[in-house]
Amino acid sequence: MSKKSQQGITAKKEENFSEWFTQIVQRCELADLRSNVKGFLIFQPWSVLAMEKMYKILEEILQKKGHKPYWFPTLIPEKNLKKESEHLGGFTPEVFWVTHGGKKKFEEKLALRPTSETIIYPMFGIWIRSYNDLPFKVYQRANVFRYETKATRPFLRSREFHWIERHSAHSTEEDAFNQVKEDMKTTEEFLHDILGIPFIFFKRPEWDKFSGAARTFAADALNPDGKVIQQPSTHMISQKFSRAFDVKFKDKDGKDKYCYITCYGPAISRIFASVIITHGDNKGLKFPWEIAPTQVVIIPIDKKVKQKAEQLKRKIEKIASVEIDYSDKRPGEKFNYWEMKGVPIRIDLGLKDLEKNRITIFRRDLNRKEISVKSKDVKEPIENIVLKRIKEISKEFTKNLIKQADKVFENRVKEAKSIKEINSAIKEGAIVKCNFCSLEKDGEKCAEVIEKEIGAEVRGTKLDERQKPSGKCVICGKEANHIVYIAKSY
Amino acid sequence: MSKKSQQGITAKKEENFSEWFTQIVQRCELADLRSNVKGFLIFQPWSVLAMEKMYKILEEILQKKGHKPYWFPTLIPEKNLKKESEHLGGFTPEVFWVTHGGKKKFEEKLALRPTSETIIYPMFGIWIRSYNDLPFKVYQRANVFRYETKATRPFLRSREFHWIERHSAHSTEEDAFNQVKEDMKTTEEFLHDILGIPFIFFKRPEWDKFSGAARTFAADALNPDGKVIQQPSTHMISQKFSRAFDVKFKDKDGKDKYCYITCYGPAISRIFASVIITHGDNKGLKFPWEIAPTQVVIIPIDKKVKQKAEQLKRKIEKIASVEIDYSDKRPGEKFNYWEMKGVPIRIDLGLKDLEKNRITIFRRDLNRKEISVKSKDVKEPIENIVLKRIKEISKEFTKNLIKQADKVFENRVKEAKSIKEINSAIKEGAIVKCNFCSLEKDGEKCAEVIEKEIGAEVRGTKLDERQKPSGKCVICGKEANHIVYIAKSY
Repeated sequence: MSKKSQQGITAKKEENFSEWFTQIVQRCELADLRSNVKGFLIFQPWSVLAMEKMYKILEEILQKKGHKPYWFPTLIPEKNLKKESEHLGGFTPEVFWVTHGGKKKFEEKLALRPTSETIIYPMFGIWIRSYNDLPFKVYQRANVFRYETKATRPFLRSREFHWIERHSAHSTEEDAFNQVKEDMKTTEEFLHDILGIPFIFFKRPEWDKFSGAARTFAADALNPDGKVIQQPSTHMISQKFSRAFDVKFKDKDGKDKYCYITCYGPAISRIFASVIITHGDNKGLKFPWEIAPTQVVIIPIDKKVKQKAEQLKRKIEKIASVEIDYSDKRPGEKFNYWEMKGVPIRIDLGLKDLEKNRITIFRRDLNRKEISVKSKDVKEPIENIVLKRIKEISKEFTKNLIKQADKVFENRVKEAKSIKEINSAIKEGAIVKCNFCSLEKDGEKCAEVIEKEIGAEVRGTKLDERQKPSGKCVICGKEANHIVYIAKSY
Repeated sequence: MSKKSQQGITAKKEENFSEWFTQIVQRCELADLRSNVKGFLIFQPWSVLAMEKMYKILEEILQKKGHKPYWFPTLIPEKNLKKESEHLGGFTPEVFWVTHGGKKKFEEKLALRPTSETIIYPMFGIWIRSYNDLPFKVYQRANVFRYETKATRPFLRSREFHWIERHSAHSTEEDAFNQVKEDMKTTEEFLHDILGIPFIFFKRPEWDKFSGAARTFAADALNPDGKVIQQPSTHMISQKFSRAFDVKFKDKDGKDKYCYITCYGPAISRIFASVIITHGDNKGLKFPWEIAPTQVVIIPIDKKVKQKAEQLKRKIEKIASVEIDYSDKRPGEKFNYWEMKGVPIRIDLGLKDLEKNRITIFRRDLNRKEISVKSKDVKEPIENIVLKRIKEISKEFTKNLIKQADKVFENRVKEAKSIKEINSAIKEGAIVKCNFCSLEKDGEKCAEVIEKEIGAEVRGTKLDERQKPSGKCVICGKEANHIVYIAKSY
């Protein structure tokens, strides 16, 4: 354990979010920034173990929905990127270029993949023959590279990050759009129901699309500093890329047609940032149950309980990941340490308690101690009573985190009727709902006004928005066609 | 399914190994070589699913042995590589260099990691403080890059491959050597006991070490063409790298000392090649039970058995990965297809059989059909009888593969007393045992003679060799100090 991790978290999340986040990353030993590669992280065991669990869960979801796993090359020839001009334009400024192998200079430089459309879709062109092959759904777990010129921040923005990218080809636009909706569902299942991260899925304005996409849909989560952070996005690539890379199929009518393509890119390392930010408190991390590297920690208060601790561990490890803290620290230090590390359940094993047939459990979801007691008329050993309680808590745990997070989020979505109201709501750290003229090119000027005067962005419209737009656009006063959401971002 | 996979394997493994391997890779849809990045593969679902299982198994083994998972940056500044001159010399010719980010030329070029010593050990220098921190054991799952100038072959040698690298720092040379022995044990557990790959672990000669290592130990598996293929290697890096990267610790005596470092690099994609090669036959692949993407396939012979097939699937999926082949192919085509794909157990579900309370099982380990029958006096449904049988077969399956593979391997290790005998044994595709003068620099000349005259290499000595060297070196006639093994390689 490093010296840093011996200190607790001293910054307050609500007062100095930035410092709080930095302390969490360092003191919980999630990532080390001291390598000499600028903008790159070293991901440490406590984050890697959680992110590996995240990968496993998301890959299972994608496989169940019919996606097959591939590993595509990390290097992509420049000519592939040039085939789709908008995509190239969007990504070129941030491509890392490989120009030499040993001492040999390559005739054509190779891109370190910033994303893999341009290496995957040419293969779609080879693999897909007829309507029978569609939908064709693939994914890969991969590290991707972007030469970010903005300031990097651990997990949130770095020059190498770890994600899954999902790509698919469809025979009709409708089928492709159903895939986009499936991606939104996947995001809901994964980010909200398993990880407890609240977000809104937006249809992005025309001027804020993925390079080369017909339409982009993206999830925004909200940080305590009032800035939104873009989480997974899904894109109707439509037929642009299939024309560029010749992805055709023979339809039932015998005609050759271009496929409709969609893609979706959940960045595991960035989603992990939202896990930290959403649930963490001034004591430290709080892991949702399913991804906690260690789900239960046993603290032996006295040396004499070692045998009991080992017995209990053997029982618990059948239902949860568990470890015993045998370190030399005082019990109080151990309590603080494991609360900081975000372990869901702590079991304090003391001799006096055991003599009274009691075991104390601390649960991090509610930051509360509770005592399991074996009454005299019960034959079961106390371990079994604790085990049952762990099972119960494990089922409530993430639900409690979700409830708390949803409440915070809902309170921060506000409505505004004028630019003045938007301004003051944004200052309070809100996502602001208002009437707006247009998400197409016409609306960009109004968005620029908002950006210039308030420093906030039009994030888009909600697909399942229940309210109807009424009256005028808050900026230009023309008739409002949309209810949009406005927020600050990084 | 592609047209290729509709053809069976036509080449004979024992007659034309190279063509057989190419057909397996293509027709079983393991990898596609048609991307336009030279020397790079697209790994397809059937291999990725197996390799993901391999990762999971090996990571669990390493974690149990006290290694913690990290993700280090893929890019390494050139100056890091320059710090250890031997290492640099060994790897420079095959480094891919990143020179630009967007349009900006970097002041210092960055290497795409060929291996990660030079980015990990500087961090060891930061993280390790005292003897209490030792041993310090880390691993990472990673893709690595080598600009190979030799001909590439799928899984066996390509410019990007997928591996795990394990690194550790120790307080004494003895402790470091125990780690090397642990790596050998890990290799035995993983490659032999789980994957069924026979190999010999060699101490490599002085002239065939990992660049920068004091000593290299490596496993050689044997291909049917009589060539060995190097599998995981473990290296006593000793104190060379700890001096170069300043990896010191305060010992119990209060003195600052350099750590002893070891590393170990099992290449998952290359080990997968040995899985294919060791167990595959002229019908196609044979997967060891634990890593088969699909462990059981159900073939409904008649359309009327669909309900029964689904019932059976639901029962089997609790103990194995299972799918039902509902495709339009004839049963015979399905049989051939799944035998080629190497699925361990096939269940042929026919109406006539079911009426007689019988179910036919085909097991790929023994290439044999057997029939599960429910006799009249048994109350259990036939599905439960099949389920029990699957459980039994799953336990024998890999053992049968191991038995077959070990027998083949043992028969191909031969002894020789002269260069003539070596030559004829090598021509028969053997690994040849003989007396040899020295593994240190003195012996290199004799090794060169063998290479020149026979085209074979001295692979090293076995650590647990039972025989004692006796008499003279087969080449120079000086006193023999070792029993070495000689073989051809790629």
